[in-house]
Amino acid sequence: MITTDILIIGAGPTGLFAVFEAGLLKMKCHLIDALPQPGGQLTELYPKKPIFDIPGYPEVLAGDLVTNLMEQIKQFEPGFTLGETAETIDKKEDGTFIVTTNKGTKHQAKAIAIAGGLGTFLPRKPLIENIESFEEKGVEYFVKDPEQFRDKKILIAGGGDSALDWSIFLADVAASVTLVHRRNEFRGALDSVEKVQELKTQGKINLMTPAEVVGVHGEDYLTAVDIDKEGEVITLEVDNFIPLFGLTPKLGPIADWGLEIEKNAIKVNNALDYQTNIEGIYAIGDVNTYPGKLKLILCGFHEATLMCQSVYNRINPGKRYVLKYTTVSGIDGFDGTRKQAEKAVVKAIQ
Amino acid sequence: MITTDILIIGAGPTGLFAVFEAGLLKMKCHLIDALPQPGGQLTELYPKKPIFDIPGYPEVLAGDLVTNLMEQIKQFEPGFTLGETAETIDKKEDGTFIVTTNKGTKHQAKAIAIAGGLGTFLPRKPLIENIESFEEKGVEYFVKDPEQFRDKKILIAGGGDSALDWSIFLADVAASVTLVHRRNEFRGALDSVEKVQELKTQGKINLMTPAEVVGVHGEDYLTAVDIDKEGEVITLEVDNFIPLFGLTPKLGPIADWGLEIEKNAIKVNNALDYQTNIEGIYAIGDVNTYPGKLKLILCGFHEATLMCQSVYNRINPGKRYVLKYTTVSGIDGFDGTRKQAEKAVVKAIQ
Ligand SMILES: Cc1cc2nc3c(=O)[nH]c(=O)nc-3n(C[C@H](O)[C@H](O)[C@H](O)COP(=O)(O)OP(=O)(O)OC[C@H]3O[C@@H](n4cnc5c(N)ncnc54)[C@H](O)[C@@H]3O)c2cc1C
Ligand SMILES: Cc1cc2nc3c(=O)[nH]c(=O)nc-3n(C[C@H](O)[C@H](O)[C@H](O)COP(=O)(O)OP(=O)(O)OC[C@H]3O[C@@H](n4cnc5c(N)ncnc54)[C@H](O)[C@@H]3O)c2cc1C
Repeated sequence: MITTDILIIGAGPTGLFAVFEAGLLKMKCHLIDALPQPGGQLTELYPKKPIFDIPGYPEVLAGDLVTNLMEQIKQFEPGFTLGETAETIDKKEDGTFIVTTNKGTKHQAKAIAIAGGLGTFLPRKPLIENIESFEEKGVEYFVKDPEQFRDKKILIAGGGDSALDWSIFLADVAASVTLVHRRNEFRGALDSVEKVQELKTQGKINLMTPAEVVGVHGEDYLTAVDIDKEGEVITLEVDNFIPLFGLTPKLGPIADWGLEIEKNAIKVNNALDYQTNIEGIYAIGDVNTYPGKLKLILCGFHEATLMCQSVYNRINPGKRYVLKYTTVSGIDGFDGTRKQAEKAVVKAIQ
Repeated sequence: MITTDILIIGAGPTGLFAVFEAGLLKMKCHLIDALPQPGGQLTELYPKKPIFDIPGYPEVLAGDLVTNLMEQIKQFEPGFTLGETAETIDKKEDGTFIVTTNKGTKHQAKAIAIAGGLGTFLPRKPLIENIESFEEKGVEYFVKDPEQFRDKKILIAGGGDSALDWSIFLADVAASVTLVHRRNEFRGALDSVEKVQELKTQGKINLMTPAEVVGVHGEDYLTAVDIDKEGEVITLEVDNFIPLFGLTPKLGPIADWGLEIEKNAIKVNNALDYQTNIEGIYAIGDVNTYPGKLKLILCGFHEATLMCQSVYNRINPGKRYVLKYTTVSGIDGFDGTRKQAEKAVVKAIQ
């Protein structure tokens, strides 16, 4: 059992920043995310794109913002359960909660912060008969660990940035990479398209367009796929088939936790602390809704901050907290580090 | 008459970022600040100190944050009335407001955002008889424009960073600089204390400690001060006397605008849009209060953002606004510039 003060469901920018504000109040956090890496939408959907409305950043790449947030929270030593979906919740008699993931990992916490964004990202699956039986047995919708594909015969399907970028990356790792797309035209960053063109010319990527995967074969494990290329069906031996047709977010199991839901989001008390209708469960960032709600990164930061104050009062009843400025008080990490402004000296001048 | 969409009172971080969010919604802003420069507390009180709790910045100097905010908003061409205090407000029949400063400058706007922080900064004045009659006639509580002191005989009083830093700076500008402090010990950044020591040794700063200014003389304009040095009173000819004994903020004239005030702050509707009890007047940042309020920079950013949406609805009745991501839609400046993410290409691979 993993135990912590605040269990944060969702390691997007909101969940990550909550670790920092909790840390200032000496509360420990653990994060669960269905994705294999932290950063939420920023890492999964647009890591190389600039954001212009983070206060104090005229421009910042989404991926860099996540890197900076990870750097900012590291002294508070957050724990991570990645690649797992929070599925069930139980409230115990002592007021703590137990959250269990789809893989059975159990987490116990004094308060729950749902920072689940638009929900878990579910891959758009191709309509191929029997494909479910090969999922995680050759058919992969995410590249969690590229090493898993070393010296394998890979087929990637898709026409966007993910398909282009993983074809480029895996061309150096896999035994062979075949890229299949239903159109001749790809849609992505210019340099990615040009790089795939170059690797294709060098024979390092095998390109099939316009074409579509229409069948999967194998016994326990995938061994081959059928490809329809302009009416002609070819069977190709492969170890892995990676369809990259985009992701759709879904609120998922959290929708059944007894929380008030409105427009696929969780209703919270925005007049106070972003708490839900269940005491001790908060919802912050894109996942919540209230009158005037804006699904913006900077709003999640504020919501996380106010929520942490409320959790502090919850788990330290009667203890009065006086707001301290980081500039004035510095930051004491759980790892023993200390950050602080240079101290003023008191010194005579002769 | 200066006319604008949103008149922002206070050019601290909250007021500055409001310009950005308003600009995204195609609304123009003008800012009034009593201080000679933008940045509020950050510029006036701790420009060289690090802040650790700006989301995405593990560490940023307060002065750099202000510089970045100014850079972030520049394409929305904010207007500034600096060095003037917003004093009176009138609501006209057409729903617009007229705000007049202590110097008589008039501003007309469709909505008012009070981002006045802790209020205007009032200098702590030394208890010297008759000093008021020399204010701005030789006695200056702020260094607004250092050039005003070129080739003048200057006396600075105080023992903190401001006194040290301005002594250093003006040593190169003024004909002579005398620094008077009631104790032998100064309290400030180590390098400032050392620099003053060095300039004193070189004879570029004339140091008098422990000592105190006890009298001021002149006719229309200041010509000399009396200094009590350990019981002995010396009269020194000076052109300027600059007492730098710190600032105390005061809500000031805004307290009389008919707004609901609680604990020296303005009550707002935090459940919606940070509007005050007077329709069309909003209060954001340190200046407002509501249950759970935290006087933090990041909270001001969120409040400014929600306020701008509300003002948009107010001045564009019936027009539906659909939230756009800056990453997706880019930013069109009022100065004709455009910022945007690199466009995806749609391109065949041969
Ligand atoms: C293309 C694009 C451009 C954008 N541009 C901007 C912009 O310029 N400015 C801006 O402010 N915003 C922008 N946004 C929106 C911004 O990305 C979101 O506001 C932000 O990501 C919300 O952060 P979050 O932490 O609340 O949620 P998310 O980033 O969505 O993270 C939520 C995380 O929770 C996880 N999760 C959900 N449910 C579970 C569960 N049951 N178990 C385990 N994990 C779970 C998800 O896997 C996900 O990683 C943009 C979004 C997109 C798609
Ligand atoms: C030493 C110190 C360290 C701090 N450290 C941190 C930290 O680490 N993290 C953090 O989040 N916060 C910190 N703060 C607090 C932070 O500075 C404030 O939250 C922030 O400045 C508030 O911004 P604001 O724009 O709302 O108001 P302010 O920065 O106070 O700006 C308000 C402006 O309004 C002007 N004004 C007021 N009334 C009038 C009027 N009638 N007419 C014209 N102008 C007017 C004032 O002159 C001022 O410039 C610190 C504060 C101090 C003093």
